[in-house]
Amino acid sequence: MIAILKQGTTREQIRLLIEWLAKLDLDVHVSEGAEVTVLGLIGDTSRVDMDLLGSLEMVAAVKRVSEPFKQANRKFHPKDTVVQVGDVKIGGGHFAVMAGPCSVENEEQILSVAQAVKDAGAQILRGGAFKPRTSPYAFQGLGQEGIRLLLEAKRQTGLPIVTEIMSISTLEVFAEVDMIQVGARNMQNFDLLRELGKTKKPVLLKRGLANSLQELLMSAEYIMSEGNENVLLCERGIRTFETYTRNTLDLSAVPVLHELSHLPVIVDPSHATGSARLVPSMAVAATAAGADGLIVEVHNDPSHALCDGSQSLTPAQFSELGGKIRKIREAIV
Amino acid sequence: MIAILKQGTTREQIRLLIEWLAKLDLDVHVSEGAEVTVLGLIGDTSRVDMDLLGSLEMVAAVKRVSEPFKQANRKFHPKDTVVQVGDVKIGGGHFAVMAGPCSVENEEQILSVAQAVKDAGAQILRGGAFKPRTSPYAFQGLGQEGIRLLLEAKRQTGLPIVTEIMSISTLEVFAEVDMIQVGARNMQNFDLLRELGKTKKPVLLKRGLANSLQELLMSAEYIMSEGNENVLLCERGIRTFETYTRNTLDLSAVPVLHELSHLPVIVDPSHATGSARLVPSMAVAATAAGADGLIVEVHNDPSHALCDGSQSLTPAQFSELGGKIRKIREAIV
Amino acid sequence: MIAILKQGTTREQIRLLIEWLAKLDLDVHVSEGAEVTVLGLIGDTSRVDMDLLGSLEMVAAVKRVSEPFKQANRKFHPKDTVVQVGDVKIGGGHFAVMAGPCSVENEEQILSVAQAVKDAGAQILRGGAFKPRTSPYAFQGLGQEGIRLLLEAKRQTGLPIVTEIMSISTLEVFAEVDMIQVGARNMQNFDLLRELGKTKKPVLLKRGLANSLQELLMSAEYIMSEGNENVLLCERGIRTFETYTRNTLDLSAVPVLHELSHLPVIVDPSHATGSARLVPSMAVAATAAGADGLIVEVHNDPSHALCDGSQSLTPAQFSELGGKIRKIREAIV
Amino acid sequence: MIAILKQGTTREQIRLLIEWLAKLDLDVHVSEGAEVTVLGLIGDTSRVDMDLLGSLEMVAAVKRVSEPFKQANRKFHPKDTVVQVGDVKIGGGHFAVMAGPCSVENEEQILSVAQAVKDAGAQILRGGAFKPRTSPYAFQGLGQEGIRLLLEAKRQTGLPIVTEIMSISTLEVFAEVDMIQVGARNMQNFDLLRELGKTKKPVLLKRGLANSLQELLMSAEYIMSEGNENVLLCERGIRTFETYTRNTLDLSAVPVLHELSHLPVIVDPSHATGSARLVPSMAVAATAAGADGLIVEVHNDPSHALCDGSQSLTPAQFSELGGKIRKIREAIV
Repeated sequence: MIAILKQGTTREQIRLLIEWLAKLDLDVHVSEGAEVTVLGLIGDTSRVDMDLLGSLEMVAAVKRVSEPFKQANRKFHPKDTVVQVGDVKIGGGHFAVMAGPCSVENEEQILSVAQAVKDAGAQILRGGAFKPRTSPYAFQGLGQEGIRLLLEAKRQTGLPIVTEIMSISTLEVFAEVDMIQVGARNMQNFDLLRELGKTKKPVLLKRGLANSLQELLMSAEYIMSEGNENVLLCERGIRTFETYTRNTLDLSAVPVLHELSHLPVIVDPSHATGSARLVPSMAVAATAAGADGLIVEVHNDPSHALCDGSQSLTPAQFSELGGKIRKIREAIV
Repeated sequence: MIAILKQGTTREQIRLLIEWLAKLDLDVHVSEGAEVTVLGLIGDTSRVDMDLLGSLEMVAAVKRVSEPFKQANRKFHPKDTVVQVGDVKIGGGHFAVMAGPCSVENEEQILSVAQAVKDAGAQILRGGAFKPRTSPYAFQGLGQEGIRLLLEAKRQTGLPIVTEIMSISTLEVFAEVDMIQVGARNMQNFDLLRELGKTKKPVLLKRGLANSLQELLMSAEYIMSEGNENVLLCERGIRTFETYTRNTLDLSAVPVLHELSHLPVIVDPSHATGSARLVPSMAVAATAAGADGLIVEVHNDPSHALCDGSQSLTPAQFSELGGKIRKIREAIV
Repeated sequence: MIAILKQGTTREQIRLLIEWLAKLDLDVHVSEGAEVTVLGLIGDTSRVDMDLLGSLEMVAAVKRVSEPFKQANRKFHPKDTVVQVGDVKIGGGHFAVMAGPCSVENEEQILSVAQAVKDAGAQILRGGAFKPRTSPYAFQGLGQEGIRLLLEAKRQTGLPIVTEIMSISTLEVFAEVDMIQVGARNMQNFDLLRELGKTKKPVLLKRGLANSLQELLMSAEYIMSEGNENVLLCERGIRTFETYTRNTLDLSAVPVLHELSHLPVIVDPSHATGSARLVPSMAVAATAAGADGLIVEVHNDPSHALCDGSQSLTPAQFSELGGKIRKIREAIV
Repeated sequence: MIAILKQGTTREQIRLLIEWLAKLDLDVHVSEGAEVTVLGLIGDTSRVDMDLLGSLEMVAAVKRVSEPFKQANRKFHPKDTVVQVGDVKIGGGHFAVMAGPCSVENEEQILSVAQAVKDAGAQILRGGAFKPRTSPYAFQGLGQEGIRLLLEAKRQTGLPIVTEIMSISTLEVFAEVDMIQVGARNMQNFDLLRELGKTKKPVLLKRGLANSLQELLMSAEYIMSEGNENVLLCERGIRTFETYTRNTLDLSAVPVLHELSHLPVIVDPSHATGSARLVPSMAVAATAAGADGLIVEVHNDPSHALCDGSQSLTPAQFSELGGKIRKIREAIV
């Protein structure tokens, strides 16, 4: 870490600063230039509060030279991590599509969608049981019963399942779930991340609506620092001024995350765009950008006129998309 | 709630949509115009998923006519809510300043800052015990011991205390805390909000970095819908492209929240700007805009050269600010 | 256009509003519902100031049912527009790659890059002569001399050229330029757009850093409303909170613009990401998303160690990218 | 300027980089630390393209130590600039309120509003003659005739006038205008800025919707570098994800701009919020934050029911606001 000091900083101030940094077990290499003095901080700088350091009157700027994440860092783990979810491998050349309804509604629905997405080529079944909803008055999901239904669908189709957790207190309900999703709103629910780090379960960690890629990696680090290396990073759109799409899908996240980290990168085009019409083109674009997998909403009742055009694809649309994705995968290898 | 249907929507599609809405206990008033058909949804529309409705192929736009929040809504509670924190009243003409260090570090520190901010005019002591940190390797706060020290400072100074909760599992540690803070990162940790709604404790609810004012009010609604009406809304800066300040303080939130809700509105200029130099002008601006209170960082060691210029004010600067705030309060009444 | 009136609006207020709208040659269809009154505005609503209408006290919301752009609108021109730039066709199934250096520096440079990008498969040569620079002290481009050099490169390679205009006053200097670029900063320089509308030259219109897709289409409409239909829309990244990339490339712009408009859509991955390492994956992703073309920076001196890693590709990297793009094109057809 | 090189950069690469920097007339001070090598660039670094330098493969980060603006920089001009507009002084303790209608509509309107805002305490009359409109089909203002009417209002009331320019080609029409406004969309229309720099007229430079404060200062620098020091900076809201207000008024811009620059800072609460209800609280907040002036929309026809609630205040509301502003001014001195 580098701290650039303002012109006019006195030797006494520098001495005090070095003394303070020494308490954090850091050595300091001082370089006095014609215009500025630069401090090189040597040691474990991940403990340094950059915001605090940068806010000191004498400090013009602070710059990390090494990233603050370690276990998620490709520098220290050059090889791609391959996460195993049931029998399905993701990352390191293994590509997986997760599909299913937004919410689990009832047994008939989840069983029929599960079969439909399996037939259309999905490797993992997704479905919401605990639903984070902006309004306390909205449907909050079937909860534990929803997970029971997902497990039933797993038994019937053989597809491993991924579903979202909202609170540590429900962790034991997820005992047989193959992969646990942490939603965008909980990306910095650090206590939840730590608890998931104590399990060995694969965690699908979604990027928060206003979180930087570095913050996403730091949240992965929370999970990994507790011993769980099975983390998948998921780009699902960020909040911007544009209102035509629900969020703005940041596909440059795919090559950036691959550059910075060895963890698999998944893209969710359904939540990002909020419109089924846009899902196929964003799904193929994500694949072309090098994503290791996709998570796509497919709804339950393709015959039901009402649902056409929602953010969920019909099984037929999803099946057609699968064909394109395979061709793109071949094109970029 | 109004749904505007696209041109070319068939009667059969409209019939199916009305049928679906009827299942949500909504009556529908159909108005066919020359260019569009407009549906007026009558009944408890707070249960309707606007995103879903708006994503239907036949729907051009959905517009709420009534806000989705009820208990936080000024329409149904025209009078300002006054929240009592210890002996201190906030809202409805009562203005309060909360001050203290970013983190509780040790007994000497918290006791001396507590006395200093009391002497300088603060009515409530703030201080972090459980600290949400981006990095798992950073100092996470003193936790339970930090709360014990805050309570000791309360005993010695008589100031009520406010401190942040990060997880439901620690709720009992907050038994003697006067006001519980929900941080920006947990604004949509709905399980936590619900549990706090089951207490009667005042809750200082901070706006998330990328959350709209309506989402802030919906999170307040989560707390209130469980029976706790003692909610204070806190604007603390949002994430934008500007990098000179840490976040962008959205002061128009003050009149907007006052218009929409009866709850007190607090402003945190310290975290929003990230720089002590900007805190005083933003604190007086917030007061002039009509805020019901401020929460300000004041650090522990005014004699310590290192800390000058951080986001925390010295007790002397804080005391001077107090004088200005009182003059502004008189000017706007 | 629909205006939803607030509850409690009096008949007299409605009468006044209808009177005012009548002055804009609009008929009004009034629909009084149980909760709200909805006005349907019939006629040429493109002249209505939505902001003004929406800001009236009595109006709860205003919603356009028809888009405010006409000539750029796919509804009225269902067939894809094909723009011809020299011998090169773009749009309607024709895909083109434009490449070249950020700035024209000297004759040797532009001639060598032009030949290199031609050899590597580019169909159009790009290069900056008039450069919009944040600082008045930075290099502002070679200006007219730069355009002379581009024309020389065109003569030697046969590649048509595209270069940016900054001011109407230089329009005649662009007489032999094949396609004129309007940069992001000038996307709403309406006087410039109108003048370009009076020519028949293809215009590459870049999206502003903070402009919505609808605003981009309205700016295209400025050009088209003066009689020039040869407009290409260019997504080049928007400004968000993320700092790892220079801007956030919004690839969902590609399907959205194709849905709303018949104009070709070009993507600029170089300026969006600011890093050559990210250009190839974003270029193939843009192609997979359905873009009609790409504009890519390729630098002049592949042997020069200094430039490696800047936002420009080397000719070799660009040539390799060309092969991938062709495979992606085949995969998505 | 500091460039931090990545670990593993070779001596040969460093030599090449220093050679390249030498061509820009920069001396380089090399400091090799244990982990990184830091280059200190000495000389006129305002010509260095930071983006380009930072994008080089070997460069980990670039940091300006000195700001890239000079004439606008408080470091080199510690004393506040006072701009004189007609008889009115702005800056350096002089506070001015500019008021008037959004657009000049006709003689009767502008004369009556001019008299009304004068009676209510405004010192400068504002009014749009050339209007930048998103749609080519919307009313584009009265143009030259609008300026003639403003000058007539000036003659009758004695108020100096400020109005917006959109194109260099109309500059001579502004000969008798007291202050020229550059709108948000033209903040980086560099050719226009340069031409205005060749006049001596006060220029009210509005911040672009997505422009940083540093970019605003760089645009001021464009004007000043041509010899015109009469520049006023205007904060008018930035584009964010929040949709309740039209834009997000960034009031921290006031102290930040005062810290960085000696130029007066004006705030426009009308365009920022888009709602007359929010204008008074934001106007007093801006005053409390230390703004040197306000520009406020006041409409023409207070008796006309239609306009109530638009973004414009009535003369009565504006007059009441004036009283509050005076009290705030007294409170903060």
